[in-house]
Amino acid sequence: MIKGVDHIGIAVNNLTEALAIYEKVLGLKPERVTVLEPQKIKIAFIKVGDTKIELLEPLSKESPIAKFLEKRGEGIQHIALKVGGIDDMLKAMKNKGVTLIDETPRKGAEGGKIAFIHPQSLKGVLIELCEK
Amino acid sequence: MIKGVDHIGIAVNNLTEALAIYEKVLGLKPERVTVLEPQKIKIAFIKVGDTKIELLEPLSKESPIAKFLEKRGEGIQHIALKVGGIDDMLKAMKNKGVTLIDETPRKGAEGGKIAFIHPQSLKGVLIELCEK
Repeated sequence: MIKGVDHIGIAVNNLTEALAIYEKVLGLKPERVTVLEPQKIKIAFIKVGDTKIELLEPLSKESPIAKFLEKRGEGIQHIALKVGGIDDMLKAMKNKGVTLIDETPRKGAEGGKIAFIHPQSLKGVLIELCEK
Repeated sequence: MIKGVDHIGIAVNNLTEALAIYEKVLGLKPERVTVLEPQKIKIAFIKVGDTKIELLEPLSKESPIAKFLEKRGEGIQHIALKVGGIDDMLKAMKNKGVTLIDETPRKGAEGGKIAFIHPQSLKGVLIELCEK
């Protein structure tokens, strides 16, 4: 069950520079900056009402964020939906022939379970499901 | 003042096909489909918790959505922020040297006032401000 938008992920080349621009232009400040070693990314969450903007900087050329930046440049990379019953949702999607990046959930940056749906199943949009 | 995310805009080649996919994969249905003659686009709003996904199909090659699709393909095109005091926000941004697509607000698809900030001022992200 989809409950709302948890966050919107934006790929940037340099997180420090991007945060300075979000503060200057929109007056938005991050809650915290975190390095995710396994994913080789540095991220910042910015609260925007009931949802968040997540800025993502790759720390390695192997990170999916580095590949996105190389292919498309800086910009909006994914939408994360807050859900309940993620395991059942993924099973039902698999049964319908939806292409999943994660067929079973893995641990997310903020704890909880996450899984990505392949953009080829959603007209070019990368969707993350998050259950807290 | 930024209050939250009003909607996330996604460019699609064919709205009918896209709506069928959003329903099949995510179980999401549109509130309504609207043709915006002046902007030469057909749009659908899908409620997702407190925010919305807006799917946009161009009805003319001159529409900014058609240009986006030609350059980047189908995908997430903009983030719309719910704001208060849009006129003062735009004035303050202009004074700080922010590049604005709309220096003064215009009427939005759902009524109210909207204005776009140029993506070159926000690291490739097109931001719409909406005041209802």
